[in-house]
Amino acid sequence: MNIKDIARLAGVGLGTVSRVINNHPDVKDETREKVQKIIKENNYIPNNSARNLKKLSSNTIGVLIRGVFNPFFSEMVDIIGKRISQNGYTMLLRHTDYSARGADEIRNLIEFQKEVKLQGIIYLGCDLKEIDNTTFENIEVPLVLASTNSTYNTEVNNFSYVGIKQIESAFIATKYLIERNHKNIGIILGIKEDIGLASERLQGYKEALIKSNIDIKEEFIEYGGYSTRGAYDAAQRLIAKNKNLDSIFCISDIMAVGATKALEDMGIKVGKDISIIGFDGMEISEFYNPSITTIAQPREEMAEHSIAVLLDIIKNKGENRHIVLDTKLIERNSVKK
Amino acid sequence: MNIKDIARLAGVGLGTVSRVINNHPDVKDETREKVQKIIKENNYIPNNSARNLKKLSSNTIGVLIRGVFNPFFSEMVDIIGKRISQNGYTMLLRHTDYSARGADEIRNLIEFQKEVKLQGIIYLGCDLKEIDNTTFENIEVPLVLASTNSTYNTEVNNFSYVGIKQIESAFIATKYLIERNHKNIGIILGIKEDIGLASERLQGYKEALIKSNIDIKEEFIEYGGYSTRGAYDAAQRLIAKNKNLDSIFCISDIMAVGATKALEDMGIKVGKDISIIGFDGMEISEFYNPSITTIAQPREEMAEHSIAVLLDIIKNKGENRHIVLDTKLIERNSVKK
Repeated sequence: MNIKDIARLAGVGLGTVSRVINNHPDVKDETREKVQKIIKENNYIPNNSARNLKKLSSNTIGVLIRGVFNPFFSEMVDIIGKRISQNGYTMLLRHTDYSARGADEIRNLIEFQKEVKLQGIIYLGCDLKEIDNTTFENIEVPLVLASTNSTYNTEVNNFSYVGIKQIESAFIATKYLIERNHKNIGIILGIKEDIGLASERLQGYKEALIKSNIDIKEEFIEYGGYSTRGAYDAAQRLIAKNKNLDSIFCISDIMAVGATKALEDMGIKVGKDISIIGFDGMEISEFYNPSITTIAQPREEMAEHSIAVLLDIIKNKGENRHIVLDTKLIERNSVKK
Repeated sequence: MNIKDIARLAGVGLGTVSRVINNHPDVKDETREKVQKIIKENNYIPNNSARNLKKLSSNTIGVLIRGVFNPFFSEMVDIIGKRISQNGYTMLLRHTDYSARGADEIRNLIEFQKEVKLQGIIYLGCDLKEIDNTTFENIEVPLVLASTNSTYNTEVNNFSYVGIKQIESAFIATKYLIERNHKNIGIILGIKEDIGLASERLQGYKEALIKSNIDIKEEFIEYGGYSTRGAYDAAQRLIAKNKNLDSIFCISDIMAVGATKALEDMGIKVGKDISIIGFDGMEISEFYNPSITTIAQPREEMAEHSIAVLLDIIKNKGENRHIVLDTKLIERNSVKK
């Protein structure tokens, strides 16, 4: 099926079909409808890369996501996608390899911007350390990093950033446990090598302990590899090392699930014998049994800010901005009352 | 940064840079390394769509996934991706809109095969009803539907299919409950309009009841919209309508989580007072509290078969095949002993 077949079936000339395909106004409504009907019925899609590329170049915003399946970003992509459409743009969604780090991340961005001519890029979950003014010098379109495990000098002004107060949020989680008479507070982090978000959350944990004159103990720090299974094992190790452990702060909800399960399997009642607090505000923290007290990230707000900032820059209505949002502690049943 | 800059920095001619980029053998190792180093340091990516398209066309296998974030497919994509690389091909991953149905699905496939010239397509989660010999007549490359909510005439031979025994699996789940002295067995399906997988699982449920001379009652059938929250509400409705309810079969694990939570919130102990069985074998069924008995789908095996069948066809070593695999009941703690 090609453009000639469509013209023949519709009983019109090639030029007319071409005008319909390219949304040219100079076609009678009746003719347009007839051609569109035939195109649809025959599942005809114009096979013209050049035309597609040209068309895409005018109004496409790229959304790059770290990792193929990260449910954390699901809701954010929904919102960003809707706002992109509402503003007359098209979303081009791509995933990067979860293991990409450092220079690979930059190459992903450059490759992405060359794939089609993008108006701008939102990158969810970018993992770059010590971003400076040279990091993005080869990115030629406006760039917003959102929900990012990155560190940067706040004087850098060639990209925008939308994130949360990492240190303060972890401080609040730990303080919440301390205020409820917990003194022997374990923490389950991701991986030892992590220097971004995880180290900031560890810092918040330590600051809360110091402020309450509680000693920081190495044996209270464990690593769950950001997985449920990993946190299950990490919680068992924490218990084995620390007979007096009274609570655990997990830096993600899916790790809080693993830790809770490990304790329950040992006959330790979470929320009665030992307390657990998570981080993220994922749906499973609400539906787990017991429901898990957590620090909810403002995913919706992060999404709205990301696309708003990007559109402002594209439309020359604004400059790059760095937006850092508050999180919210949601009290449930995994912490002793 | 363009190819001339690379040539200048490397102190070689344009042709040499071009040969390095195109992996042409006629370059000294030392020169190749120098050029590659400069390309890498400068994050230079050849900006030549024609070349990229040509290069992609020779060895690319497309993997299309229904829905942006479906954790069910995560592991399958990992395996398929690995096998694609091992066989010297490149994977091109795309997601389709979760709401796409019928003709939209076909358009997605046609659009995908035109994006670059693919050697073949694996489509995970395709939702097409009554596939016949005309359905895929415009798909010009080998096509494998895997883990698909589709119905088709088994005489159709222009695509391959890898799936599970839906009716039998649901029969086994229901029979398992009956054998453990459950008689008032509710079922939580997805949506009323579903005619594919959900109706087959409902059929298996009904057949098991009939075989044991248990009446099929409309008030035992509920819909949870495939979501945790939806199943939470559906379980509450089942309980409200049926004081004698002794068990629930949920046709997905994330719905089993919602149903379990609803019962626990009502003070009903799952695995003691009422039994729940899920479907899929997702990680959360293992880590939920209580752990959830489920029908595990052979995701790894489905992935291996999908890519094996496709590669056989591409290499002219095999014909289209329809492979239907067994599932496995995993006994945990959500069903009364």
